[in-house]
Formats: sequence, C-alpha cells, structure tokens
Amino acid sequence: MTMDPLDGTAAEIAALVSRGTITARDVTRRALDRISQLDERVNAFTDVTAVRALAEADAVDARVAAGEVLPLAGVPYAVKNLCDLEGVTTRAGSKINRDNSVAGHDATVVAKLKAAGAVCLGALNMGEYAYDFTGRNAHDGDCRNPHDLGRMTGGSSSGSGAAVAAGMVALAIGSDTNGSIRVPSSFCGTFGLKPTFGRISRARSFPFTASLDHLGPFARSAADLALAFDALQGPDPLDPHQADRPVLATAGLVGAGTAGLRIAIAGGYFRGQGFDTADRAVDAVAAALGTDRIVEIPEAARARAAAFLITNVESATLHLSRIRSRPGDFDPETRDRFIAGTMVPAGWYVAAQRFRSWYRAAVNRLFEEVDVVLAPATPFPALGLDETTMTVNGKPVLARQNIGIFTQPISFAGLPVASVPIWLAGERMPIGVQVIAAPWREDVALRVAAALEAAGVAKAPIAMVEE
Amino acid sequence: MTMDPLDGTAAEIAALVSRGTITARDVTRRALDRISQLDERVNAFTDVTAVRALAEADAVDARVAAGEVLPLAGVPYAVKNLCDLEGVTTRAGSKINRDNSVAGHDATVVAKLKAAGAVCLGALNMGEYAYDFTGRNAHDGDCRNPHDLGRMTGGSSSGSGAAVAAGMVALAIGSDTNGSIRVPSSFCGTFGLKPTFGRISRARSFPFTASLDHLGPFARSAADLALAFDALQGPDPLDPHQADRPVLATAGLVGAGTAGLRIAIAGGYFRGQGFDTADRAVDAVAAALGTDRIVEIPEAARARAAAFLITNVESATLHLSRIRSRPGDFDPETRDRFIAGTMVPAGWYVAAQRFRSWYRAAVNRLFEEVDVVLAPATPFPALGLDETTMTVNGKPVLARQNIGIFTQPISFAGLPVASVPIWLAGERMPIGVQVIAAPWREDVALRVAAALEAAGVAKAPIAMVEE
Repeated sequence: MTMDPLDGTAAEIAALVSRGTITARDVTRRALDRISQLDERVNAFTDVTAVRALAEADAVDARVAAGEVLPLAGVPYAVKNLCDLEGVTTRAGSKINRDNSVAGHDATVVAKLKAAGAVCLGALNMGEYAYDFTGRNAHDGDCRNPHDLGRMTGGSSSGSGAAVAAGMVALAIGSDTNGSIRVPSSFCGTFGLKPTFGRISRARSFPFTASLDHLGPFARSAADLALAFDALQGPDPLDPHQADRPVLATAGLVGAGTAGLRIAIAGGYFRGQGFDTADRAVDAVAAALGTDRIVEIPEAARARAAAFLITNVESATLHLSRIRSRPGDFDPETRDRFIAGTMVPAGWYVAAQRFRSWYRAAVNRLFEEVDVVLAPATPFPALGLDETTMTVNGKPVLARQNIGIFTQPISFAGLPVASVPIWLAGERMPIGVQVIAAPWREDVALRVAAALEAAGVAKAPIAMVEE
Repeated sequence: MTMDPLDGTAAEIAALVSRGTITARDVTRRALDRISQLDERVNAFTDVTAVRALAEADAVDARVAAGEVLPLAGVPYAVKNLCDLEGVTTRAGSKINRDNSVAGHDATVVAKLKAAGAVCLGALNMGEYAYDFTGRNAHDGDCRNPHDLGRMTGGSSSGSGAAVAAGMVALAIGSDTNGSIRVPSSFCGTFGLKPTFGRISRARSFPFTASLDHLGPFARSAADLALAFDALQGPDPLDPHQADRPVLATAGLVGAGTAGLRIAIAGGYFRGQGFDTADRAVDAVAAALGTDRIVEIPEAARARAAAFLITNVESATLHLSRIRSRPGDFDPETRDRFIAGTMVPAGWYVAAQRFRSWYRAAVNRLFEEVDVVLAPATPFPALGLDETTMTVNGKPVLARQNIGIFTQPISFAGLPVASVPIWLAGERMPIGVQVIAAPWREDVALRVAAALEAAGVAKAPIAMVEE
C-alpha cells in the first residue's frame, strides 16, 4: 500500500513535489478532500480557500518545473483566522469582525510561506479575539480535538492544532500571547514553536495584546517547525515592532543532537501544580536527555499575574469601542473579561511592565548557566469540552483559568519555546513539554525537540478521527 | 582690571587651568565664595560640598601637573539634587527623602564629569520630586531668578538654571521630563541641552517618569554645552534603558556654522499661544538664520495631553507607597497631582503610549525634510513668584499649568533640543527658543545654537543679583 503523501511531514511532501514525484496540485486536492471529509466533525476551518489553493499549487508546480528550489514546495498549510488572507475577512474568532471588509493583502507570514512554495488551504477556527485557552467558540462553534472529539483542542489557536493533528494540513500558523500555540500543541499532540518575542513579523495580523503577541508554526515534526521558522523569519519593513536580528538557518541544525547543551528542569512553581501526568512527561523528557538538574525560574507566579494583567488591560483598550457599541455581539464570557480590563488602574499596569523588565533580565541571566529549561506546557492533558473544574492534588481548581499557568510566565519573558508532544504509557491523550531556550536561540530549542523525536520520546501521529 | 576667571565660560576656565595660569583650587575657592555671597538671596543650592570640591580641585591640579589633558579641568559645576553624590542624601526636592541614607556612589553623570576634570560644588534646589514648572519648593524654599529675585526660575531644575545664571558655577546638571531643563533655561537666560531620549545615563539619579526622564547640562555658552555633552555621553552598563549609540565628538563641531542646514519654524500649535514675546524671539532667531520656512509638528496638542497623562500615571505609581504612608509630608499641590494619577484607568495610559509610537514616527519623518525646527521654549518670560494667572491673547489662562505647553510635545518625541536665551530689545527678562534636531543629532542643535551666539542673537550674561 502506498502511503498517502498527505500523511507525510512537510519536509517529505516538499521533497516529493520538488522531485516531481507528485504535483503540488495533487497534494492540494488531497488536502481539500481530507478537509471536506473530516472538518464537519473537527471544525478546524472557518474558511477553505480552495480556488486560491489550487491556483497557488499550479504556480508552485510551474516554479518547480522551471527549476526553482522551494523549501516548502506544495506543502499544504492554513492560518489562524487572525492572519490576513487577501480577499477573506479577518474575523479573529469574532462575530463583530465579520462585518469588516475583506483583507486587501496577505499577512507577512502568509506572503513568506507562499514565497517558500507552501500552499494556503484557508483560515482556521480560534477563540474569540484570541482571549481563550479552551478552543471553544460561541460564533463559529467549538473546535474539537481530533484525538477525542469530546475534548477541547485548547486555545486560542484551536484550529491550528486540530488541523495539523488531523493531518488536514502539514503546517499551520497560530498566535501565542500567553500560551495559545503551546496549549493547543499540548492538547492536540503537535509540535509548536513560540518564537522569541519580536522575531516574526506580525504585520497584517489582528492583534490581541501588542506587548505580548507572537506568531508561530504548528507541525508534526521538529524539522518541519524549523523549515517553517526559517521561511517565516527575517526583517519586515511593515512591522515596526519586529526586532532586527540575524536570520539563523535553523533547518540545518535540527539534526545536530544535544551534545554540549546544558539542560535543566524548571523546579518550584513548575512542579506539582498540575496532574501527575505533567510532571511525568517532563521527567520522561529529562531522562531521555540525561539530565536531572533543577533550576528555579524566579518569581514565576508574579510573572503570570503580571502577564494576566497586561493582557487584560491592553486587550480591553483595543476593544473598548466595540464593547461600547456592540456589547451583545461578544461571547458574554469574553466581554466580561474585556469590561474588567477597562477598570484596572493605570498604576497596576505600569507596575506590571516595570516588573516585566526586572523579570526578563533575571530570567535571561539563568541562561548564562543553562541552554535549555524544561517545563510542562499544560497542567493536564485535553479537558472534556464541558469540564469547568478539575481536581489537582485532591483539591478542586477552576479548569479554564488554570490551563495557562505554565505557559504564561515563559512568554512573559519573551523566550523561544518548542512545545513537544509526549504520549505517556497508559494515557489516552498526549501532553506537551516546553523546551525553552535563551532569547533568539530557537535553533537550540528545535535541536532538542528533534533529538527527542529521534529518540521516540516526542511524536505527533495523525489522529484517527472518530466517525 | 583683570576679569574674574569665574566669569568666564567652562571652556575658558578649563583653558586657564590646563595652561597652569590659575589652579583648580583657586577657581573652586572663588566659586565657594560666590555661592556664600549670593545664594542666601538666590537659594539655588541645597547642599554645598566644599570639602569634596577642594579635594577634587587638588586632584585636578595634580592631574594637570602630571600632563593629563582634561577637557573640563577645574570647571565648577553642581547637580540637581536628584543626582546621587556620594555621602549626600538625594532628596529630589522632597521632605520625605531627607530621611533616606546618604548615597553610596556618585551618579554616572557625576562620575563622568569628574573624569573630565570638573569640580562638583554641590546639590541644587528643584521642584518637589521634579513635578514642577515654577521653581518653587515648599520644603527648601523657592529658588529665585537671579535676573529678578521677585520672579520664578522655572522648574523643575530651578537651582540648575539659577546657579549658572548667577555665575556661581559654569555648568549644572538638570533633568527634563517635560521641559524641566528648557523652562528654567528660558526663564533664567541660560543655554540648556535636553539630549535625545536614552542618550545620557540616568543611573543613580532619582526618577520621576521613567519613560520620559532625561538628564542634561546647563551652561552660559553653546560650546560649553557641547563640552559637557561630550563628557556626559557614552555607554553605561549601569543604565539598562540607555540606548547604545555612537559617541559624537560634538565639541569640535560647534564652530561649523549652519551652511547646508535646512531650518524651519514650528507653525500652528507653536504660534500665537503665548505672549507676543515668544513668537518674536523665534522670529529673531529665524531671521538670523535666514529662514522663513514653516513646518507643522503633527498632533502637538494631543502629544502634550499624552505626555501629561503618562507623567501623571508613572509618577503616581512610583510614589504610591509614600502617598499612602506620608501624605502630610508632601507639598499639598504635588500630592494632589499624584493622587489624581493613581485613579487614571489603565486603558488611557495604554492609548497614550500607543499614540506616542505613532507620534514619534510621524515627527521623525519631518526630519527627512528639515534638519532643525525652531519653537519657543516657554509661552512667556519668567513669571512673578506669586503669579497664578496670565493674560494671553486677551484671555486669562492659568500660569503654572501653561508653562510647559511648548516643551512637552518635543520631549514626548524624544528629540534633542538646545534651548537658547534671547534678550529682545525693550524686554527686562530673557526668553528661550528651542533649537530642535533629529534624534541623536545633538551636534546639529548645538551648531545652530553656537551660530546664534556668534551672531549675538543668543547670549547668557551673568546676572547682576540685587542686594
């Protein structure tokens, strides 16, 4: 039996298309078929851009025929519906934005993937205005976990995690403000990369919290994350907030192994706050990497609180006019969070930003002693869609409110993180581990992720979606 | 009759000391004498560091004797009492800070001036916690204008302007958040430099508004500002907020004239909002520079409002614990401003910072078309000490609240400004004109200031202090 090329990784698809073994058009048609077959159940897509996809595929086939080398030739991907796609309305998971005009241009990340030969299949479901960790959406319907349709995908990049986990696309773009790439990667069992803050252009994407938003890729292998990252990075005159940093050819480094890397486990706050599953996943990764060293990330709880507050204030400010003019068109839960954000005193925000400066410097100093820190991505695997409370250490805790406890302190420092999917023996669902590196060292996080994949510790099998 | 060397400029004093014509000790003793003779009336100093000054002077004389080249050899200076002086309590114009321990180290600006051979005479009066434009101080007593003791010095660097204008020191350090160098320069008739935001280290100085504070020099000539600026600039590992920019040898450029510079007058907001004196001073400068070109600084009124709000919020946050614990030890007017700042909603602050990003970019674009923009430093010359209202264009306006209308929008963009003192015919008091340049181009602003001084349009005579 010949394997469906769509079941391969992005690197494998690009190799087949580049070699002329299959055409980008063929891969694209298979992806469209699979979306049409699975997405009624998964609900990962809000817009399938079939006409665009086939036209892009034909263009890729022509470029390949003309001898052009395309690192992502014919690779099907899709983007969280907060990235502009020319001719599509950027809804950002909301009802209100559906009334906006269609986008006049592609987002920079879309333009860069297109240049690398990838083919865009459409826009993906997400939590309303990205203020979400569950993957539920009151307007577009909940996105469902392809590994268990009764469970959450995690959010807010719900469709990005689900589309990749279900094998509808090989790559997806999501955004991560406090964990919105790492949480759905953990719940859906994919690899996900939250790059260094400021690394990847956010131009022509709908914002959530300007001082914390990141864009990044989802994939089913570490090497694919590196391929996507290399295509996505690089300066963009359209994004004044992007830091001007040299481009690393990361993809060439993922096979380099972990020799010489100083790897440690995040202790204290990052241990024993979730299910035992979370700690065991980190331990399995640490064992595979031959480390039992513990480091303390200072003031992580305070960092989470400050991230929470800055998010609440900046997003409420962004949405103030909509809260005033169309309060009934929000999901009531999102609206209440925004309303709360309008009432925070400015001094709290200033204090949180001042703390962030201190915290970022303190966390960066940690990386003088270690190269990589390991921490759980989520405190538990994917929750049931209606679960609102969990029992942790014998005590009831609110479920949604605690999903991001391990991701928030890391993004608050701006560090790059590869989230790797771990399937523990006896567990029905995967859980993610954060492989955290020093600022601008995505290559290091991806090298470790690739080594874990090569050792069989991390893996992202395509989900068998229930009928 | 031999001129008193203390009546010379910093450059002249340094030349005499370097040549061995006089000693630094002699200059220092003359400065101590003059302070003791004048300061009872002017009230510019809060701390005279005589022992330190004489020891520093002796060290300078030894360094000169050993052949060391010191650009500020023996130049007497003093610092606003928010810069740390080892062994002195940094009071920042307050009563509360008098209870703090003495500083363990000199501020970076002090260390840099010392390295260049300058001699520190002490700490200077200022508005409480720098939240002031008048030069009045409820705890240390009002600082008085050396040109007319019944008038304000302007603030908050009141003592810096007064000490230089009275000839007690050749240089002084002040700080400028919204105008606190340029306002006292205007009222006291001195030259003053507010450098580009982030240019000069603020390490070991007491803050007011972290995102707007600048330190900079006062002098009685443009060349002296350049000498001081060259001594003050350069990287400082103690100040993480300092931008890493190449050091310009500005002092060599001040005689270069204005040929080739595109110079324009700020129109709109910056015209007709103050006394006729303000517009006439700008016109005199423009005529001397041969320009009648007008440019518009976009959204200047909004910039002033945003600067006002950010100042209010950040300073209130900084002082919150003191407002709570020692409300009765503030000047009631300062305290009320801080209390107001604690009640601002965070969204207003976020919106003001977002506007600032836009505004800074828009203002920087102006400098693609011009090299220098001229604007009044204050809307009127020095007010009487008790004046609380003014008549502008036939209408009554609040005095203190309008002193900074022309300086606030400029510092909000972070631009470097040399304030030059203009004595119009028939006016009893001087008024300042802001010579504004592109970011990091202090050299351009100082070239223009020096040209105006050479043409006799700008000048800073030593005040004849009334008995």
